[in-house]
Amino acid sequence: MKIYVAGASTTAFGELWSASPRGLARQAVFSALADAKKTANDVQALFVGNMLSGMLGGQEHLGAFFAEELGLTVPAFKVEGACASGGLALHNAVNSLLSGQYDTVVALGIEKMTDHKPEDVATALMGAGSEEERVSGATFPGLYAMLARVHMAQYGTTEEQMAAVAVKNHYHASLNPNAQFHNLLSVEQVMKSGKIADPLKLLDCSPISDGAAAVVLTSKNSKAKHHKQIEIAASVVATDSLGLSQRKSLTKLSATEQAAKRAYEIAHISAQDIAVAEVHDCFTIAEILATEDLGFFPKGKAAAAIEAGKTMLGKNPQVVVNPSGGLKGCGHPVGATGVKQIVELVEQLRGNAGKRQVPGADVGLAHNVGGSGATAVIHILKSESEHK
Amino acid sequence: MKIYVAGASTTAFGELWSASPRGLARQAVFSALADAKKTANDVQALFVGNMLSGMLGGQEHLGAFFAEELGLTVPAFKVEGACASGGLALHNAVNSLLSGQYDTVVALGIEKMTDHKPEDVATALMGAGSEEERVSGATFPGLYAMLARVHMAQYGTTEEQMAAVAVKNHYHASLNPNAQFHNLLSVEQVMKSGKIADPLKLLDCSPISDGAAAVVLTSKNSKAKHHKQIEIAASVVATDSLGLSQRKSLTKLSATEQAAKRAYEIAHISAQDIAVAEVHDCFTIAEILATEDLGFFPKGKAAAAIEAGKTMLGKNPQVVVNPSGGLKGCGHPVGATGVKQIVELVEQLRGNAGKRQVPGADVGLAHNVGGSGATAVIHILKSESEHK
Repeated sequence: MKIYVAGASTTAFGELWSASPRGLARQAVFSALADAKKTANDVQALFVGNMLSGMLGGQEHLGAFFAEELGLTVPAFKVEGACASGGLALHNAVNSLLSGQYDTVVALGIEKMTDHKPEDVATALMGAGSEEERVSGATFPGLYAMLARVHMAQYGTTEEQMAAVAVKNHYHASLNPNAQFHNLLSVEQVMKSGKIADPLKLLDCSPISDGAAAVVLTSKNSKAKHHKQIEIAASVVATDSLGLSQRKSLTKLSATEQAAKRAYEIAHISAQDIAVAEVHDCFTIAEILATEDLGFFPKGKAAAAIEAGKTMLGKNPQVVVNPSGGLKGCGHPVGATGVKQIVELVEQLRGNAGKRQVPGADVGLAHNVGGSGATAVIHILKSESEHK
Repeated sequence: MKIYVAGASTTAFGELWSASPRGLARQAVFSALADAKKTANDVQALFVGNMLSGMLGGQEHLGAFFAEELGLTVPAFKVEGACASGGLALHNAVNSLLSGQYDTVVALGIEKMTDHKPEDVATALMGAGSEEERVSGATFPGLYAMLARVHMAQYGTTEEQMAAVAVKNHYHASLNPNAQFHNLLSVEQVMKSGKIADPLKLLDCSPISDGAAAVVLTSKNSKAKHHKQIEIAASVVATDSLGLSQRKSLTKLSATEQAAKRAYEIAHISAQDIAVAEVHDCFTIAEILATEDLGFFPKGKAAAAIEAGKTMLGKNPQVVVNPSGGLKGCGHPVGATGVKQIVELVEQLRGNAGKRQVPGADVGLAHNVGGSGATAVIHILKSESEHK
């Protein structure tokens, strides 16, 4: 059985002061349904990816909450796995189709973060970390700063190379009408921005964001194609220890490596076949780790490759990474991110990505991470022309 | 493909002051694995049902959290749907097997509620309700009290008949070593207990509890059978409006009715084939509604039937309801309940339920509800002798 993305849509990401979670969900889901030329009556189950609504808003039971808002009286689930909640919701949605229980389902990723005090958001986000890390007062910038330090020591990765990730992702975001940031950055600007957790500076960090994204998944191969058909060729999850202290290596996220290996097997491709990837750049170092762990570059070689423009839209990229702007440029409403990555890939593989189109993109990869790498989710998408 | 429960175990439920969530999870999962004669190495994915850990404990990412604790480096998910979180975790676990992605998975339901102030628990539980209900200061006892009032007005259901549910469930619990309560109740005691939300009294309400339950599910039909094989013949979820104000009827939970109808179709049985059922008696009125909505009794007739002993272990029950003691007698650690129901059915269908054995039980039903009926989950289990 093959699974297709029949429709995909994202709201703008950003500080959406006038938007409610209900409104964001409606906008994302109804736009995705319209894109699929389907109506709410076609939907048989709803999978909601969200992390913070309970801790910050006191509202749980989001499956039923959003089902009611959307007028869906269908089985509805909230799936949570920190910043990988969107990817995990998708994985369960895909499995529900493969199981034969449903033939058309919606995965919605959503987060509303900016209505809360930043210190409350930071505390809530530590709900993704280990107890040891939480009680010792660690923060995610601090944890990723440690990963950056190890990578710098081991491979000579420089702060300027990390800055190059932010520069690239802001450039991509400047081409994306839905991105949180449209301003270009220079390496110098990143280097001069305030230190958050040395060596990570403010402009190495993804922002706090609001937003929602939705995809309509179906196991029915539609004959009336108004879009190029996009297949989900692999959906794989891997898990590592929650905290860094239990890891064998700090120069990679093993869960990413493991999920990617399995995903390539399932999709019958290799890393070199990927034309476009949306990866989890919660911090600039995370994109360097990801592009190595995914096999785009050998370990220790990604930073220089990114600095040389090999992952940027332009003349002759090896693989375009984060054309949406990524978490850094497009924004990171945590539960929404894993679904938004799929929306971006669908636009790319359909050839509808406008100014940020990767020419001839036919195979795409989405990489969504929870915590400091405890959860990794990989989806591989192929466009019709790639179908055997 | 058939799905089997290879192993099942529950911790004791109650006020477990000296137990940690980690310890409860270990106890439930390792006992379930031992029961299945399997080890952690056999597990390919972990589905965790939990509602309150984020709101009360600041810890999310429970899939990875418990995977690490259990020594499992496998895909791990938290599934949440209020008090139906356990049932929803199971449903996603079943689908993951039917999808062919995994062949052996664990579903863990867990909740630690008594470490927190009761008023904080009550506030957190309202995270399951509608925004309208939350801001108006409604509580779940209040919402179910309204359902009770309507049922009393429409069908002449009496407070003594509701009390009979608690009396029966405490009797069953007195036979269950893992139950929170072992004391017998009389109708008079229930009637004289303090009013919580008129007409519901303290002893009409399920308690605040700690506990964990786990099941090992597999799609592999084991030839080396050390237990009677137990099949999950149906796993169905239905959804209704989050709040009561949007419901067409207040004398039933439509989601229960709808999920049951579909589950009977899938399992090729009728309500009359069910020998034993674990139903969601968060309040005594909820068990009366459930036994009607599930089709055990015509609408308006369950209360008298329960009062007459037709659902109690004993001489000649029509269907034994909540032999574990149910939520009222066995306890209600919210995320654990939906999984504990399955553990009880497995013991019943294997013929291992000891003093609370329902003679000849070969088909069982579990009914798990989220909120005031926004989510309903039905599982139907059959023992080997029922296999075609």
